[in-house]
Amino acid sequence: MKLLDIFGLLKKDMDYIEKELYRSVQGEQKLLSETSLHLLKAGGKRLRPVFVLLGGKFGTYDIERLKLVAVPLELIHSASLVHDDVIDNAATRRGKPTVKSKWDNRIAMYTGDYIYGKALEMTAGLSDPAIHRILAKAMVQMSIGEMEQIRDFFNTGQSVRNYLLRIRRKTALLIAVSCQLGALATRAPEHVSSLLYTYGYNVGMAFQIQDDVLDLVGTEKQLGKPPGSDMKQGNITLPVLYALQEPNLREPLLEEITRVQHEEGRASASDAIGMIRQSQGIAKAEALADRYMKKALDALDQLPNIKTTKNLRDIAHFVVKRTH
Amino acid sequence: MKLLDIFGLLKKDMDYIEKELYRSVQGEQKLLSETSLHLLKAGGKRLRPVFVLLGGKFGTYDIERLKLVAVPLELIHSASLVHDDVIDNAATRRGKPTVKSKWDNRIAMYTGDYIYGKALEMTAGLSDPAIHRILAKAMVQMSIGEMEQIRDFFNTGQSVRNYLLRIRRKTALLIAVSCQLGALATRAPEHVSSLLYTYGYNVGMAFQIQDDVLDLVGTEKQLGKPPGSDMKQGNITLPVLYALQEPNLREPLLEEITRVQHEEGRASASDAIGMIRQSQGIAKAEALADRYMKKALDALDQLPNIKTTKNLRDIAHFVVKRTH
Repeated sequence: MKLLDIFGLLKKDMDYIEKELYRSVQGEQKLLSETSLHLLKAGGKRLRPVFVLLGGKFGTYDIERLKLVAVPLELIHSASLVHDDVIDNAATRRGKPTVKSKWDNRIAMYTGDYIYGKALEMTAGLSDPAIHRILAKAMVQMSIGEMEQIRDFFNTGQSVRNYLLRIRRKTALLIAVSCQLGALATRAPEHVSSLLYTYGYNVGMAFQIQDDVLDLVGTEKQLGKPPGSDMKQGNITLPVLYALQEPNLREPLLEEITRVQHEEGRASASDAIGMIRQSQGIAKAEALADRYMKKALDALDQLPNIKTTKNLRDIAHFVVKRTH
Repeated sequence: MKLLDIFGLLKKDMDYIEKELYRSVQGEQKLLSETSLHLLKAGGKRLRPVFVLLGGKFGTYDIERLKLVAVPLELIHSASLVHDDVIDNAATRRGKPTVKSKWDNRIAMYTGDYIYGKALEMTAGLSDPAIHRILAKAMVQMSIGEMEQIRDFFNTGQSVRNYLLRIRRKTALLIAVSCQLGALATRAPEHVSSLLYTYGYNVGMAFQIQDDVLDLVGTEKQLGKPPGSDMKQGNITLPVLYALQEPNLREPLLEEITRVQHEEGRASASDAIGMIRQSQGIAKAEALADRYMKKALDALDQLPNIKTTKNLRDIAHFVVKRTH
């Protein structure tokens, strides 16, 4: 959990959240407890809980209330990952076998359903209807984002706007909501929770764009999986869309993408990736990520100038890793 | 919706619930709206909403409040069905193509996730934390029940208790909760909602046992699918477990079940079914269903003797269809 090296102050509370996360999925059914724990213990940056706790610093910080938001948000994120792995046919995640590969697709599907249910069981402890509404909306938008991703697999005709709407639903909204709910759960002022939402949304957009860039320019060691995984599974990301806008690149790149599609994962995507690396696609995508970052930092400038605001700035820079 | 022929009084409100059900899954994402509508329009008895509305008659009946429970409960049930179809590899349900066969498994999975999310979005309109807690618990138990069903496929060594625990989670709890939440949402007295829960739980158990019997003794016309579907997919039901207890039947029946398992759906289960029909399994299962029915009716006897109590009695008899 390198993220916390930046600021030790949350260490104790994040350890507590981690324990509660494991505890939340323990239950009378052995197999579901086991698959869920496997999933959770495979790690992750625990970004969403970190954002919840930091959001909570703007109100009356209370770890017992914040827990009821932080744990469910990480659970919802995890449930979406285990369903993702079924779709993506992924054998590993973060270097560890996925639930679908260690067990099977059916077990992965019900593990996701179980974890969603456990998330709701926990939020039921909060009586604020606004929190329930915000969480439910985020879940709906996430499933729409996932569906759009399937729909858009290998769709080289999609617009940049299309891509942005998709990552908004798939990634940015849940991060926005994490920041916002931390504030709401501790009864921070309305304008604070709203600024935190704006911050989280823009960090989420920048993060996903940069993550998509990394998949094209990173090394296998950096990524924990072979580069070009997005391309191989048909996920057409922002740098690809920008590269396709270059007249001299468009036709050969389309041809390569079609080849990758038809050879269904057996083909290497390295020719396509080589073309994209030589295009302006990477630089243009990073420029857009920067614009989202700037908006995120602008939102912070309007928040009270407390230590947490500085932490949020550091986190934004940490999460949205530049490649050069 | 033949169920409502028994009592016309709910017709108007059930029509309204039906419309709201369709409306609840409409959204900006075309494909998800389409798959969800396809699923909902394929029909179903709408048992859970009927139970909610009847439960609501014991409190201050208010269709706008009841809707916020009735629609989500039917949505949760439907979402579990669409995930079931992925697991069961089912081509049709109620004589219509399933989402997984008309589209694909991945789309079916996200359709389920989307519908779960929409269900929660709607319940977020209710501020009573008890209702959220009860719904979340029911969702968790259902996913455990589904997982147990997979785990127990072709497990001929399972106990009757094991079977009962599984159908409790898979079916009975959601029906119990439907009756209970109708009462809670309209602020009926505590002992009334608790009796309604007992009624619903026992009707649900009797219903599932009878449904499992029907799969063995019904005709294709009655069932809307070939008989023996449970056996073919490995779902070992109560009559089978009872038949396996008969010493002269045990070995040949085990052998037939193993054959069905190894030929993976290509084999007919008719020999196994023939053996079960000749055993005491059907009669013993029906006797147990009768005991649950009796408990359900006993709970009704303790409720105020209003017209709705009579309706609940009629419904119990309608839902738990005897085969002879």
